Amino acid sequence: LLAAPTVSTANSDLEKLTQNPANWASWGGDYAGTRYSKLSQINAQNVKNLQPAWSFSTGVLRGHEGGPLVVNGVLFVHTPFPNTVYAIDQKTQSVIWEFTPTMDADVTIPVMCCDTVNRGLAYGDGKIFLQQSDTVLTALDAKTGKRVWSVQNGDPKLGMTNTNAPIVVKDKVITGISGGEFGVRGFLAAYDIKTGQLAWKGYSMGPDKDTLIKPGKSTTWQDGKVTPLGPESSLATWKGDQWKIGGGTTWGWYSYDPKLNLVYYGSGNPSTWNPVQRPGDNKWSMSLWARDADTGEVKWVYQMTPHDEWDYDGINETVLVDQEIKGQMRKTIVHFDRNGVGYTLDRENGELLVAETFDKSVNWLTHVDMKSGRPQVVPEFSTEHNGEDVNTVGTCPAALGAKNQQPVSYSPQTGLFYISGNHLCMEYEPFEVSYTAGQPYVGATLNMMPAGADVLTGKKDGTTNLGQFTAWDAKTGKIVWSNKEQFSVWSGSVATAGGVVFYGTLEGYLKAVDAKTGKELYKFKTPSGIIGNVNTWEFEGKQYVGVLSGIGGWAGIGIAAGLDDGSDSTNTEGLGAVGAYRSLGSYTKLGGTLTVFALPN
Amino acid sequence: LLAAPTVSTANSDLEKLTQNPANWASWGGDYAGTRYSKLSQINAQNVKNLQPAWSFSTGVLRGHEGGPLVVNGVLFVHTPFPNTVYAIDQKTQSVIWEFTPTMDADVTIPVMCCDTVNRGLAYGDGKIFLQQSDTVLTALDAKTGKRVWSVQNGDPKLGMTNTNAPIVVKDKVITGISGGEFGVRGFLAAYDIKTGQLAWKGYSMGPDKDTLIKPGKSTTWQDGKVTPLGPESSLATWKGDQWKIGGGTTWGWYSYDPKLNLVYYGSGNPSTWNPVQRPGDNKWSMSLWARDADTGEVKWVYQMTPHDEWDYDGINETVLVDQEIKGQMRKTIVHFDRNGVGYTLDRENGELLVAETFDKSVNWLTHVDMKSGRPQVVPEFSTEHNGEDVNTVGTCPAALGAKNQQPVSYSPQTGLFYISGNHLCMEYEPFEVSYTAGQPYVGATLNMMPAGADVLTGKKDGTTNLGQFTAWDAKTGKIVWSNKEQFSVWSGSVATAGGVVFYGTLEGYLKAVDAKTGKELYKFKTPSGIIGNVNTWEFEGKQYVGVLSGIGGWAGIGIAAGLDDGSDSTNTEGLGAVGAYRSLGSYTKLGGTLTVFALPN
Ligand SMILES: O=C(O)c1cc(C(=O)O)c2c(n1)C(=O)C(=O)c1cc(C(=O)O)[nH]c1-2
Ligand SMILES: O=C(O)c1cc(C(=O)O)c2c(n1)C(=O)C(=O)c1cc(C(=O)O)[nH]c1-2
Repeated sequence: LLAAPTVSTANSDLEKLTQNPANWASWGGDYAGTRYSKLSQINAQNVKNLQPAWSFSTGVLRGHEGGPLVVNGVLFVHTPFPNTVYAIDQKTQSVIWEFTPTMDADVTIPVMCCDTVNRGLAYGDGKIFLQQSDTVLTALDAKTGKRVWSVQNGDPKLGMTNTNAPIVVKDKVITGISGGEFGVRGFLAAYDIKTGQLAWKGYSMGPDKDTLIKPGKSTTWQDGKVTPLGPESSLATWKGDQWKIGGGTTWGWYSYDPKLNLVYYGSGNPSTWNPVQRPGDNKWSMSLWARDADTGEVKWVYQMTPHDEWDYDGINETVLVDQEIKGQMRKTIVHFDRNGVGYTLDRENGELLVAETFDKSVNWLTHVDMKSGRPQVVPEFSTEHNGEDVNTVGTCPAALGAKNQQPVSYSPQTGLFYISGNHLCMEYEPFEVSYTAGQPYVGATLNMMPAGADVLTGKKDGTTNLGQFTAWDAKTGKIVWSNKEQFSVWSGSVATAGGVVFYGTLEGYLKAVDAKTGKELYKFKTPSGIIGNVNTWEFEGKQYVGVLSGIGGWAGIGIAAGLDDGSDSTNTEGLGAVGAYRSLGSYTKLGGTLTVFALPN
Repeated sequence: LLAAPTVSTANSDLEKLTQNPANWASWGGDYAGTRYSKLSQINAQNVKNLQPAWSFSTGVLRGHEGGPLVVNGVLFVHTPFPNTVYAIDQKTQSVIWEFTPTMDADVTIPVMCCDTVNRGLAYGDGKIFLQQSDTVLTALDAKTGKRVWSVQNGDPKLGMTNTNAPIVVKDKVITGISGGEFGVRGFLAAYDIKTGQLAWKGYSMGPDKDTLIKPGKSTTWQDGKVTPLGPESSLATWKGDQWKIGGGTTWGWYSYDPKLNLVYYGSGNPSTWNPVQRPGDNKWSMSLWARDADTGEVKWVYQMTPHDEWDYDGINETVLVDQEIKGQMRKTIVHFDRNGVGYTLDRENGELLVAETFDKSVNWLTHVDMKSGRPQVVPEFSTEHNGEDVNTVGTCPAALGAKNQQPVSYSPQTGLFYISGNHLCMEYEPFEVSYTAGQPYVGATLNMMPAGADVLTGKKDGTTNLGQFTAWDAKTGKIVWSNKEQFSVWSGSVATAGGVVFYGTLEGYLKAVDAKTGKELYKFKTPSGIIGNVNTWEFEGKQYVGVLSGIGGWAGIGIAAGLDDGSDSTNTEGLGAVGAYRSLGSYTKLGGTLTVFALPN
């Protein structure tokens, strides 16, 4: 008898950690990305008594995305560039260790499209994994903060950067790449958790050997059924070599199903933003992916927005929950896309189950054809159809989507998803652009404005709010309730067994609402606008809720990068965000702070 | 009949504003600088229930000194360099207007000795007065934030900067100058509140025409009595032209007695720090001053530390209260000097009444001779006596004083002063230095370490705390109680009619203690270390307590200026502060935030 090969137990370790609600050990709280906590000390009755327990300034300005990890009582806090990591002792609220990587700001910052954000850390195998802005993936000893290994994941000189949180799956750390606005060809990469060696790398586009699509075995949804892909399913949808600079980056969130051993995520916009320059479906940009965790091989892939004409990156998080759909229990994957559609698929095989808009102001499509799985595009809002140098007006949502990177939460108590939403429309004028390595490769001028329409009906109503917080039934594709917010909700929510959902606002409020009704139960104005995700954990018998504030991200780029020149709302800087969010500057200023909340003693 | 000349009513306006405890309209809460509030909604019984009500990130890192002004419900918040001013609507916690001056960072920041701090704004005549770092004094319309006038108060190219809060007295704005470490000759200047025109300017040293000392009329304490000064009382105490680069800057706080029409303040260290290079008393560095508010003419002046050998700047605040001393009611001025002595004088004529050390570890003097008013220096700790290039060890306090800029508070309820204190000793090695305009002109190497001695007795006890919070009876010169703090208390306190005193700590805690006993009643960890002053006010029937956090200042210079190179506690950077406060980096990081506290609804 041979001894069984030693396989790292990081996976089961992490699973165990996430099963204890005292921890918040990965971005989603669990592998499924539900952002649900079994803690119920803070509940719908007593949350009105919530108060800040302590706070911690990170020493870094600009946008703070993601949220703190909590592993066995220790808090791990990250910052945007320069990506400092703090391990914090909750008892004394002091710093156990800190780590700041050496990075070249002059090379990296100019090629970060949408602020110098970082969406957080991963934990596994006694290590903290930091995906640095300059693409270096670094493993730190969780006890000491000493670097164990580092690996270069891309080249900032070619416009590659990173903003995503990695995830740990078994003996691998999985990460993606940013740079869709610089012609970067996206990929998902897995590195050995012990050594940092590359294990596999699957591109979003290119030959099958690059995408790790196995023709005849990997599937997609087509003709009303799960259909094996033919050879070179990506290359066939591109003209010439455009796929080499074709985008489809992978800067969002990754989830994992340990039973199916599949990793799930979405790919971003095809490059350039000028659709005329890239005829074809541009596969597999704008797609949902299921890959084998060990090999990267594609199990299935589904393109939500073929031949994108609006920058509706498909990278938003994928939540893995089992739901009864039309009388049948299904292992589903739920995804709220920037294009405004909430998708429910079977996560075993990619079968399309539900596809409905979660904001009825969305107008670029009439509906998703459930048989072909394709959106039915309204010609009026097709920037391809209208052509280069023509300003297509009134398209909803705006390029930053009906929802952007801010992850949803899911409560098994209510069976509902809680969506942090945007509510804007846009003008979009594509123009001819040529590629230069490391230079912006956008090819469109944008303007964004309030949707001015009802989320529930789509009826124009002259409202000026730029966002809302919406509860959604993913079994049926229906909005259950929706609360208006003055600005986009750029913060990921958390749902708890206390019947409460927490989220942050761009003005800086941490809010708690009733999970059933949406009724606002509590709010507190944190130091700066919130684009971080709210996490919750327990320490010494007490439930805590924590969130990073620090205005920035795409919505806050005007403040973060100092782009507001004092001109009016037609300022098209920041790809239209500066003008649209201009009034935000009256509500909040830069500054990274972790605020930790609890009930009074 | 001629019409009476129009005199601005700013003075009486401001007096009225400060009499309403809903406002906090000047740095000291009132002209007397008591930092006492008549508000009592928050009291010693209920302060344990205090909680943050809202918070506001200023968008600026580095040290945040001073505190918010509150005038008729509007909050005015300032920042360190770049000296942004925010007017904030308390109801919506949003920004009504903001103003950021244009300054040359490359010229100004390098000549700021002790971080890029600013101690706050002044209000009067419907204007907000901002004393910019680059010495420009700017008047802003309090309603709109539009600049009304600006005036250049000094030249940064010669090492002049400003960090002080100005004060408004009648039709004038009064300000000082920083630069004692650059050979700047200090002065107090008064500018016309309407136009910014210079009204008068009184230097700390030089000919009588510069100091505005009137020989035979201006007085000092000498030979046990109030004595008129002879001609050229300053020049006589300097060798050659050294007085021209002689320091005596005025970077602290100014108070005013409307009945006596006198402005009070202290002057700083003589330049250089090497005493051997400037024989004589170096008058009037290190002195307390009383000047006529209309003309600047000196009423009286008293030198606390003749011929300074330790950098014991005399600029700390002067508090004007009436007290019964030895059975007689006196209009007193109370001042806690960096040199460790708490002084009580008659503020009408400068008569010395009390002079006792408020930290018994202080060892550089045996006592103040009450007849001559001179400290009796212990030769062992005389850096002049020990000479150039000799390291004088064990002198207490350290150069940053038994107390630095952080202003005390006074409660008429208890009759006590509340002192935010330092508790360090030092090594000090003077060396020959030559003057170059705009270059550091220090001439000493320093090392600082914990006093390791009891505040109440001075007995060596091996303690390592760097600070304490002390209650003091200025009628008798006695410590009433004293609480140890791990680090220096670099935050100004506020005393209230609720029987509570509030102060902040370098780790970032806002603390409330019982005014009578010093018992700690409440603490909350704000985002960053506190070197700001705690202020209190009322809005819509509710009492608020507010404080800026944002680590920095001299004590926090290691963090603020990134000077901690990872070496040990003997790091002499920051004139010894980097080594002494090294462990502070484990407790707090940079970041400017206003945190506003209140009782729950
Ligand atoms: O195409 C890309 O590679 C890429 C990267 C990123 C990023 O890494 O932050 C964003 C986007 N695109 C993008 O389209 C977008 O809306 C966006 C918003 C944000 C943000 O953090 O607020 N990042 C990004
Ligand atoms: O001599 C001067 O002109 C001067 C200026 C300043 C200042 O303006 O901040 C300080 C000092 N000296 C000084 O000696 C000192 O201890 C000090 C501490 C601080 C501070 O804000 O923490 N400033 C200053």
